Amino acid sequence: PSPLPGPISRYQLLAAAAMPALPFLPFCAFLGGLGLVCVAFVTAWCQRWRGGFAWDGSARMFNWHPVLMVTGMVVLYGAAALVYRLPPAWRSPKLPWKVLHAALALTVFGLTVAGLVAVFGFHNQSGTPNMYSLHSWLGLATVLLFSCQWAAGFGAFLLPYAPPGLRALYKPVHVFFGSTILLLSVASCVSGINEKLFFSLKNGTAPVPYKLLPAEAVFANMLGLLLVLYGVLVLGALAKPGWKRPEGDSPDTHQ
Amino acid sequence: PSPLPGPISRYQLLAAAAMPALPFLPFCAFLGGLGLVCVAFVTAWCQRWRGGFAWDGSARMFNWHPVLMVTGMVVLYGAAALVYRLPPAWRSPKLPWKVLHAALALTVFGLTVAGLVAVFGFHNQSGTPNMYSLHSWLGLATVLLFSCQWAAGFGAFLLPYAPPGLRALYKPVHVFFGSTILLLSVASCVSGINEKLFFSLKNGTAPVPYKLLPAEAVFANMLGLLLVLYGVLVLGALAKPGWKRPEGDSPDTHQ
Repeated sequence: PSPLPGPISRYQLLAAAAMPALPFLPFCAFLGGLGLVCVAFVTAWCQRWRGGFAWDGSARMFNWHPVLMVTGMVVLYGAAALVYRLPPAWRSPKLPWKVLHAALALTVFGLTVAGLVAVFGFHNQSGTPNMYSLHSWLGLATVLLFSCQWAAGFGAFLLPYAPPGLRALYKPVHVFFGSTILLLSVASCVSGINEKLFFSLKNGTAPVPYKLLPAEAVFANMLGLLLVLYGVLVLGALAKPGWKRPEGDSPDTHQ
Repeated sequence: PSPLPGPISRYQLLAAAAMPALPFLPFCAFLGGLGLVCVAFVTAWCQRWRGGFAWDGSARMFNWHPVLMVTGMVVLYGAAALVYRLPPAWRSPKLPWKVLHAALALTVFGLTVAGLVAVFGFHNQSGTPNMYSLHSWLGLATVLLFSCQWAAGFGAFLLPYAPPGLRALYKPVHVFFGSTILLLSVASCVSGINEKLFFSLKNGTAPVPYKLLPAEAVFANMLGLLLVLYGVLVLGALAKPGWKRPEGDSPDTHQ
């Protein structure tokens, strides 16, 4: 088994003849709109039903956690992953696009650290233990993987020291973990929204408990499904062969 | 943008030269072992800490739900998805492998229906509403997508009526939804394990609540991480170009 692509199959030829090519830019516009809707939904949830935002160790500090994680680790992360699929990135030198990819990912990292400070700050102030739920284990594993991914990507692809053989070896690993981390982010968000709704809409204390589906529950469940849709569309776009940057043309692969 | 693969890049050539090829069969053996460990973990969780199994509308009937969903929609589903990657499937006629793929997926469907009956039966007997949590919405969406995927795959690839152009058009869609459904299954399992632990290890009623991390919590959290690892490895194996069946050789693509 070799990592080179196999011969073009009869299926692929038939599909190329039969399938109307899905254009990338309208897809991107839709995806961008969907990303904004996700950010708007998570913000509206925390503002309308969870008391809004503050940075004081209260539940209003916690509210920054979902907003920053959704904005960073899902929406902006998806945008960063798709940078090389933009047609202008195909034809021009690669270095500026690498810098953009790394800068977006660094912004994601900043938002993520702030999002973690928000939840740990709230827990510590309220005496809630940290790091016990599956959501927290998976979420922290995702953030740690993402940090390693950023550091290794910076060292291998932006610093000028890595030999081309090492870059070639690491690139498919970086691409694989890029998709994997997004998948883990989405699973973390889904479990986080689910557990937050059980905490907030508890039987006996909430005016309408989660199991009777008040408006907040419908709204936040929809946020979860929209995040899953966003993640699946980004992963699908990353996997689509026709949207990948033709590597051979790049004048600065070794920059 | 065309769905045909681009030219072989300098990176791919370098990677082919530098990377020791990961052999598929040892990977499969590891994956099979990991799948068995997942089934053993979910069974042991329900047996050791949740009171074991019955089919009587009680919480012991509910226990079939995680066991059947993990065994069906994650472990066996992953095996079904990888059937065409087995080297013997590359060299022999395709029809028997299609039948195996469809039969494994039909088994998954049977386990899934039984898993849903287990949770609905328990809810109805205990007066708990159905279908309110994000876990239930995402899980049911996953099962519905999977049912459509099975029916469409059977109609397009196993019945002899579909014209080759339609098959060629549908195949990349089937492949894309194959990976997507596994991703949704894993996200559903993670959110389900997380919420079950909050229900079972409630503050005030459980001897040791979830937030103080009793042995059950550590064990079930690890189950969640193992399921994520299994899903990621299957998705990675599906995406690896060198492990894909070379389509052109098949004498019965149109069977």
